[in-house]
Amino acid sequence: MEYIFSDRVNTLKPSAIREIFKYAADPQVVSLSAGNPAPDAFPCKEVAEISAKILSERPIEALQYSVTEGYAPLREHLKGYMKQKYGIGTENDELIITSGAQQIMDLATKSLCNEGDTVICEAPSFIGSLNSFRSYNAKLCGVPVESDGINTEILEEKLKSEKNVKLIYVIPNFQNPSGVTMSFEKRKKVYELAKQYGVMILEDNPYGDLRYSGEDIPSIKSLDKDGIVIYSGSFSKVLSPGIRVGWCVAPAPVVQKMVVCKQGSDVHTNIWSQMVAYEFMTKYDFEGHLDRLRSLYRKKAQYMMDLLDEYMVPYITYDKIDGGLFIMCKLPDYIDMLKFCKEAVMRKVCVVPGNAFLTDENELCHTFRINFSTPTDEQLEKGIKILGELLKELCEAKEEN
Amino acid sequence: MEYIFSDRVNTLKPSAIREIFKYAADPQVVSLSAGNPAPDAFPCKEVAEISAKILSERPIEALQYSVTEGYAPLREHLKGYMKQKYGIGTENDELIITSGAQQIMDLATKSLCNEGDTVICEAPSFIGSLNSFRSYNAKLCGVPVESDGINTEILEEKLKSEKNVKLIYVIPNFQNPSGVTMSFEKRKKVYELAKQYGVMILEDNPYGDLRYSGEDIPSIKSLDKDGIVIYSGSFSKVLSPGIRVGWCVAPAPVVQKMVVCKQGSDVHTNIWSQMVAYEFMTKYDFEGHLDRLRSLYRKKAQYMMDLLDEYMVPYITYDKIDGGLFIMCKLPDYIDMLKFCKEAVMRKVCVVPGNAFLTDENELCHTFRINFSTPTDEQLEKGIKILGELLKELCEAKEEN
Repeated sequence: MEYIFSDRVNTLKPSAIREIFKYAADPQVVSLSAGNPAPDAFPCKEVAEISAKILSERPIEALQYSVTEGYAPLREHLKGYMKQKYGIGTENDELIITSGAQQIMDLATKSLCNEGDTVICEAPSFIGSLNSFRSYNAKLCGVPVESDGINTEILEEKLKSEKNVKLIYVIPNFQNPSGVTMSFEKRKKVYELAKQYGVMILEDNPYGDLRYSGEDIPSIKSLDKDGIVIYSGSFSKVLSPGIRVGWCVAPAPVVQKMVVCKQGSDVHTNIWSQMVAYEFMTKYDFEGHLDRLRSLYRKKAQYMMDLLDEYMVPYITYDKIDGGLFIMCKLPDYIDMLKFCKEAVMRKVCVVPGNAFLTDENELCHTFRINFSTPTDEQLEKGIKILGELLKELCEAKEEN
Repeated sequence: MEYIFSDRVNTLKPSAIREIFKYAADPQVVSLSAGNPAPDAFPCKEVAEISAKILSERPIEALQYSVTEGYAPLREHLKGYMKQKYGIGTENDELIITSGAQQIMDLATKSLCNEGDTVICEAPSFIGSLNSFRSYNAKLCGVPVESDGINTEILEEKLKSEKNVKLIYVIPNFQNPSGVTMSFEKRKKVYELAKQYGVMILEDNPYGDLRYSGEDIPSIKSLDKDGIVIYSGSFSKVLSPGIRVGWCVAPAPVVQKMVVCKQGSDVHTNIWSQMVAYEFMTKYDFEGHLDRLRSLYRKKAQYMMDLLDEYMVPYITYDKIDGGLFIMCKLPDYIDMLKFCKEAVMRKVCVVPGNAFLTDENELCHTFRINFSTPTDEQLEKGIKILGELLKELCEAKEEN
């Protein structure tokens, strides 16, 4: 039988990163391409303890069907936590627990975008979200990211010129893949523009708690007096990505529609996981755990930047990061980025080509993304040394021509 | 702000059953409206044991990101199990682990149906699946279910007359909500018709292992020599619904497209759950557990049918069931079914009005669905007695007029 797929998914491709993972599975390979938390980052003992208690005291609750909105104690706790710690959430907002933050992108797009509608996103941006928008046949419109976040002049131009813009998708903190943080001025400007043009903002904040230096900047959602921001939070980087638990704070009518869509998608999120997340946040030292993560990653981030400065600068340029898990490096214009990435794989180092994060993957691109949370310090040093040697060879070969 | 939702979800409503659940939450109410496994059905001790072992020996594996296709050992085991036990799966098929079987409906529709395409389904059918089809703006076309399954003459008429039919959705074993099992002859006929008209079959089998009497009938998927059947399996009724783990066996190109869609939906299914399911199937007496479930539910099903015969027949008629969790009762034509269901709620017994399961909820309908797995025997007796008294009153009032 010849299989004919729907228009919305016909041209959809597997994530380029997941293709690179095939090479990265080779234990000889130094993978700087992942975005996994460090093995040291998991509160394994605590999760085992919590899980044993739940499965001994309330096993039926953890294994039976549950409600689509999410585990009530976790929802209530997160509402208070987000309000108190980040000033997020008004009386017109609601909170839904999702199967990872990825599902927020899915449910928001499904609820708000017709096929052919436009989603404005940062260029570059997180490939998982871009593919989620693509899977509903949304038209992607990229707006360049600068050292202080999205270019708001171009954002306004696009809001003027593009038709049927339904969402502005941004990752204001330690953006994936650029590592860049949006300034408070730009956050306010993005909010004002969205309000002016009647478009909702989808604010994705998976790394917000992983700030290693500088001061926290208020989220766009905390400015939301008009009910125009959908905020996406996640346990993936601060507890566990494998349990697939995220949460969304958004205007109640939007959450209600997302709940109806979630009923048809997966009924509800794994309930054992939700109970574990709730117990970990409320019965353990969650803030201490976050401090420990920041301390762990601060060291690794600094080490990575030291290595880049030693082995790859000035051939590459990059923005120093204040948090998150990624650094984006820019090659000289005369170096073929894809060739560099392929040659790196041959030398057993994996990085992600920057074009994977663009709305148009065929656009000329000189960047690549590296991650420092997953590899060991030894692997980081080995990997960056190899990349440095390769780059030096390519640059010197160029100079000889 | 005025929220404008996408066309596909604009008219989507919360499941009628979930609305009824609001009443059912009252502890005074006897709920015959759920579809939850019995509290006795959960292998709590085994799950606690397995979970403790995993979280002690391989915690990072259970908490880290995993692959979209599903936990490799579980996939491999299920492939062999389905092949050996049910003759399901060819060399052209693949298997994907999903976040409950509900996600199979979501991913299959997303992959195969454009907006406006037609999905043929049994009438009545499972409301969760119908809402999933609706959420992609598929047009639903219902074909009546008889005591031996879908009416295949009407099915053929619809295949001839309906435009852009992409899927035939059936629940051949102990159908939800009718309780009916499709005969082998009809399964062969449905397969032949699908082949002839170039339409794929979506075969949903959550209750197949819960047969209490009679002989197993081969699944439609086991007849699939042409790569036209998508088979949906689930751990919800045989292990736990709260862990949200299902699996799909389908032609490889279809599974590949579902994998790409799943990347954008929830990245992967909760990995701890997948490991628990694998360990339970392979290190414990899974077949003995299924025997125990059948024995538990066989008694409850028989008790329910005895109660119906004692307190409600001949006012109602119903098809005796050989398995599953539901019985569908038909009221006399002169009784207003919705009035009956509402009055039952007033007397603190919840059942599900049959129209909730129709493609057009406004169609005239005289049936209601009852579940016997969730309530205790005492609740079953109390509930059916109350329904019987109510029905007698309504019928006698009618006779007096």
